[in-house]
Amino acid sequence: MSQNKITKLFNIQYPLIQAGMLWCAPWELASAVSNAGGLGIIGSASMHPDVLRTHIQKCKKATQNPFAVNIALLYPEIEKLIEIMIEEGVGIIFSSAGNPKTFTPFLKSHGIKVVHVTSSAKFALKAEDAGADAVVAEGFEAGGHNGREETTTMCLVPLVKNAVKIPVIAAGGIGSGRSMLAAMALGADGVQIGSRFVTSEESSAHSNFKNKVIDSKEGDTILTLKKLTPVRLLKNNFFEMVKAAEENCATVDELKAILGNKRAKRGMFEGNMEEGELEIGQVSAQFKDIKPASEIVKEIMNEFEEARMELTKIKF
Amino acid sequence: MSQNKITKLFNIQYPLIQAGMLWCAPWELASAVSNAGGLGIIGSASMHPDVLRTHIQKCKKATQNPFAVNIALLYPEIEKLIEIMIEEGVGIIFSSAGNPKTFTPFLKSHGIKVVHVTSSAKFALKAEDAGADAVVAEGFEAGGHNGREETTTMCLVPLVKNAVKIPVIAAGGIGSGRSMLAAMALGADGVQIGSRFVTSEESSAHSNFKNKVIDSKEGDTILTLKKLTPVRLLKNNFFEMVKAAEENCATVDELKAILGNKRAKRGMFEGNMEEGELEIGQVSAQFKDIKPASEIVKEIMNEFEEARMELTKIKF
Repeated sequence: MSQNKITKLFNIQYPLIQAGMLWCAPWELASAVSNAGGLGIIGSASMHPDVLRTHIQKCKKATQNPFAVNIALLYPEIEKLIEIMIEEGVGIIFSSAGNPKTFTPFLKSHGIKVVHVTSSAKFALKAEDAGADAVVAEGFEAGGHNGREETTTMCLVPLVKNAVKIPVIAAGGIGSGRSMLAAMALGADGVQIGSRFVTSEESSAHSNFKNKVIDSKEGDTILTLKKLTPVRLLKNNFFEMVKAAEENCATVDELKAILGNKRAKRGMFEGNMEEGELEIGQVSAQFKDIKPASEIVKEIMNEFEEARMELTKIKF
Repeated sequence: MSQNKITKLFNIQYPLIQAGMLWCAPWELASAVSNAGGLGIIGSASMHPDVLRTHIQKCKKATQNPFAVNIALLYPEIEKLIEIMIEEGVGIIFSSAGNPKTFTPFLKSHGIKVVHVTSSAKFALKAEDAGADAVVAEGFEAGGHNGREETTTMCLVPLVKNAVKIPVIAAGGIGSGRSMLAAMALGADGVQIGSRFVTSEESSAHSNFKNKVIDSKEGDTILTLKKLTPVRLLKNNFFEMVKAAEENCATVDELKAILGNKRAKRGMFEGNMEEGELEIGQVSAQFKDIKPASEIVKEIMNEFEEARMELTKIKF
């Protein structure tokens, strides 16, 4: 038997990480996932610094197990967030949307484990060079902001695994035990799951959004706004406006005007299903229910083991 | 041990099918794959009817094992092709790009096994209703013509598996033992591999194309021409022309004029790397060599077994 690199790195039971999704990943969710044996992540990108501090403090009280915080490196008050995380003794940080060289050495010097989220082998290598302890390789099918090369999880994981020596966590299209097993068959050391946890009871997504996600079907998400930053979202009235503008060759400024401000909050947190920006992955078409995060973890790990047993029995 | 549904359906050794790629899948390749224990497919979409007849006759002489022919249902002389396949006793037909209801019952009445290629669970169900023996679920990362919903293999396979009772063959992003194992972890009963066999010695791709494929890197392919029929190809001068036109909001007719005729032949078969249409999958970034098809099959199956053994050893 070989010790898994991710469970060892984070000192957790399962190599199953809950993504720090914008507007959906509060301390309630992170602590529930960590208590269930995975690694929970508080998503700081939608929090003011003082709100983040409260979430970290509550999370520490709610679980004895390791948990992490996700930071978007382009966040305007990033230095304030980092100061708070160091003060509060956060042990693991997942960083995304920016250059890993800017903060990784500083965080490492404070004894923090750093994982960087990338959508290409090229940037995974940059993260490794910057001192990251692991990378998340996130494919085209993932919800939210995404890479320009559109490499899918099936193609990305082997490329990243081949490029770096540090552990690789697969993300994008993963929300079941079977897909977790598939990612590990590709060479991933663990998985990061976002969309499935949006539909957990502890997620701070508005109930309208949770219900829309579990009602969504194949083909209901799309990677759009490629002239700005590509983002995968559920098709709704907001998307139709973007689509019409793009079909008329809208400029970057025109698209920015349509996007406006606080679209993501309006949709995912406030529950406006037509005018909000509803970030979610393609895998959401597979989900049919809202349940506690602990049950989601249990269900995934049970299916993982069943599917693994099945795989060993296939005979040629 | 459980008998695999695909090896049983086709009476072959491995559930590994070589796709009938346009301009790249002659009798030499199909027979080599079938002789190696997979299922080889002659790609008829780039053949005149009399050329197809020759390929079938030569393939029958070159292998005692089952092989198949791929037909594009929108092919202008489709009825002539079908007549030839029945006359020559072809036992397995893979159909794509059209309505499975048109020919499936007729082919079945001649004792032919029929597999339909789809990019959605909805159409997989239609194929099953039409009487297909199996479906190929082909993801967004696949080379050549592709679905509009852009569902990746990781997300598509579980949806299709859940929708139909007939066996499911995964395609798109698969070119190694690990990705074959991943597809089967997702629930696929077998895999169809295209791009890797383009780089086989027996493929009829021009050597310029084979070399360009093995030199290609992450991000070098793109799904384009979405206003016509979406197609994944290698970026080159032809693609740059399409891109410039699309950025200027070109009409369907303008795009058709740029595409013109015989672009695919010019590129893949005649070796014009800048003006031709070079259809290939995202997975091509992983390939580094040209080798005999039998070695490709052996390499994939060896890696499959090694990776399967590794998966059983992961301990939590």
